[in-house]
Amino acid sequence: MTREQALEKAIEAVEYGKSRGLQVEFSAEDATRTDRPFLKRVFGEVAKAGADRIDIPDTVGYSTPEYFAEITRDAIEATKLPISVHCHNDFGLAVANSLSGIRAGAQCAHVTINGIGERAGNAALEEFVMALKCLQYDKKYETGIKSELLYETSRFVSKTVGIQVQPNKAIVGDNAFGHESGIHTHGVLSNPLTYEPISPELVGRKRWLQVGKHAGIHGMNAMLAEYGIKPTDIQSKQILDKVKNLGDQGKQVTDVELLSIASNILGEKGIKRIVQLTGFSVSTGIGTMPYAFVKLNIDGKDFIGTDYGVGPVDAALNAIQKITGQISELKIKDYGLASISGGSTALCEVTIRVEDGQGNSVSAKSIGEDIVTTSVQAVIDGINRIMLKKMLNQKKIQN
Amino acid sequence: MTREQALEKAIEAVEYGKSRGLQVEFSAEDATRTDRPFLKRVFGEVAKAGADRIDIPDTVGYSTPEYFAEITRDAIEATKLPISVHCHNDFGLAVANSLSGIRAGAQCAHVTINGIGERAGNAALEEFVMALKCLQYDKKYETGIKSELLYETSRFVSKTVGIQVQPNKAIVGDNAFGHESGIHTHGVLSNPLTYEPISPELVGRKRWLQVGKHAGIHGMNAMLAEYGIKPTDIQSKQILDKVKNLGDQGKQVTDVELLSIASNILGEKGIKRIVQLTGFSVSTGIGTMPYAFVKLNIDGKDFIGTDYGVGPVDAALNAIQKITGQISELKIKDYGLASISGGSTALCEVTIRVEDGQGNSVSAKSIGEDIVTTSVQAVIDGINRIMLKKMLNQKKIQN
Repeated sequence: MTREQALEKAIEAVEYGKSRGLQVEFSAEDATRTDRPFLKRVFGEVAKAGADRIDIPDTVGYSTPEYFAEITRDAIEATKLPISVHCHNDFGLAVANSLSGIRAGAQCAHVTINGIGERAGNAALEEFVMALKCLQYDKKYETGIKSELLYETSRFVSKTVGIQVQPNKAIVGDNAFGHESGIHTHGVLSNPLTYEPISPELVGRKRWLQVGKHAGIHGMNAMLAEYGIKPTDIQSKQILDKVKNLGDQGKQVTDVELLSIASNILGEKGIKRIVQLTGFSVSTGIGTMPYAFVKLNIDGKDFIGTDYGVGPVDAALNAIQKITGQISELKIKDYGLASISGGSTALCEVTIRVEDGQGNSVSAKSIGEDIVTTSVQAVIDGINRIMLKKMLNQKKIQN
Repeated sequence: MTREQALEKAIEAVEYGKSRGLQVEFSAEDATRTDRPFLKRVFGEVAKAGADRIDIPDTVGYSTPEYFAEITRDAIEATKLPISVHCHNDFGLAVANSLSGIRAGAQCAHVTINGIGERAGNAALEEFVMALKCLQYDKKYETGIKSELLYETSRFVSKTVGIQVQPNKAIVGDNAFGHESGIHTHGVLSNPLTYEPISPELVGRKRWLQVGKHAGIHGMNAMLAEYGIKPTDIQSKQILDKVKNLGDQGKQVTDVELLSIASNILGEKGIKRIVQLTGFSVSTGIGTMPYAFVKLNIDGKDFIGTDYGVGPVDAALNAIQKITGQISELKIKDYGLASISGGSTALCEVTIRVEDGQGNSVSAKSIGEDIVTTSVQAVIDGINRIMLKKMLNQKKIQN
């Protein structure tokens, strides 16, 4: 097909649509790799033929923000029609190109939650919306989106379509509002804006601090203060040294581990693991249901639970739930699993959340080679944390 | 501290470094949220004080590409020194801002592989490098990076630091060079450039096509042709209908399933599952090693394997490997696992790669609720695929 033939087809199609009483949006696939003067001419001709709107697709994410602004201005000049932009993320520029199109005068951007779409996906709605809302452009843009629902929506979409969001994804990634290193944690505790461009609550999230290899004394003391523990300067230094040692070995330091280190150094006997996993076995296969046996020692008393489930982890968690249901109203809520490609001996990372009858919740993480026992350990850790929290809160009330 | 005091401190620090014979790079943390005239003045003064280089950090990813270009030009004008840029990704603009800085005259950008870093991370090296190499800027930029090693490097870093790359990540994500929908698959088969901005080999990758809910006849026929199967138009249509039906039920259609559907419709008896899993059981727990029992029927003959491993999946895979090691040189290579947060009953997705003695490899994917049996099913599927491929290749040679 020659260019002239393509142009004729385009005009014909628009006229056909209009003759049937339709609203017609003309979209020039691969616009950004099309000869620019010819693209402008086509836009002008289809506008004359009656098109109601124009769409500019960057089909393979090939445009720069500068070029995208230029062809958006071309389209406006040639058509005087409302313009939409459709940007792909093959070079990581989908959001920047969409913003550039809007700033050049487009009224609408095609975006997707979590940036999912063909190949590297489309412009991410959450990044696009928050950039328009928060960044200091010369003009204000109102999208009407309730930003505090962005995180919940992102999680819902991720779960439903089965496409994970990486931890370092902007706005909705696990780490987007997390702080570990000492200088950052200290800064955020003094004034959140120091290392946060926006308040996490604005997108429906919460800030989290973590102690680890890059831990600083301020973040760690803030975590201990949550449990009513106030070490002296010397004690803080001793606790931090132990935390950093664990971090250097690649270990995540959970609250319970932090509390256990603190209790050793402060000599408090009250801070200990309340729930101990003393027996555990699980089986699965073909022609059987996964089933599990769990034995827990809680405050010196033994409890046994057995149950089955859809998988070995589910079976084990059900068995634990049977026991914890007896002793208090603990519920195992979210269960998340991540593993890195590389072999069946690779480490897996399990994150869980435990909730008590009062709606308090804590999360815990465990890393190991055996998916099933690692999951069980994470749950036991979570149960300990929530029971510790409860106990320390009661202590504070009694004092 | 007043502005004047801050400026004095900056000058003092630069002078101190220079007096000790050091190369001094002056970095103005949070430069993009700093008062612009004051920032320019500080840059000018530290240059006068002897600084050798200037760094402009966008500490919380708050800058727009437009603003970043402006302050880069300010820094050059005020100092005439080499400039580096350090961009964070809190609004998804780290790569766009880094490119903007370079185009405004900066010589160096701080980037990280997979974009990892504090919170939402830094500018992703792979996106930055490929944008400079491939996009049509008015000027050419040479980074000297061997782009064909980008994918391998990305995987290595992901595995080593334990931070996953999402499937829709540009350049290095699983789906970045994948095509499923009919129109895209057809386009890519006619001319790869239609839906690929660059050849996947340029970054050390391979294109993959998949049949599923959005499958088209051309992509499906291309996959069948790989196995030497050429259905008639009517047969193609019948196969595609079945594939789409499976896709609508949310199922991934693997090569083996495609071949099995095709064999039903074409009436070829030769296309069947060679390896059948007829028995399987695995146990793990505390105070025991995970151990597994596997029974396979291969071409009508029964084989039994038992083994242990670091986890139940590893134990099962070791047991299978024991059997397949007897019958041919099959090796289970990569093992990848993904699950979506949401509960212990959530679906998990297992991806594996099987290699034969000749270095041929195929991958297979399985989705299910039970992590262990799903993993075993993926492996059996992979083994079937590689054996089928081998058998059909031999057939082709004999014909």
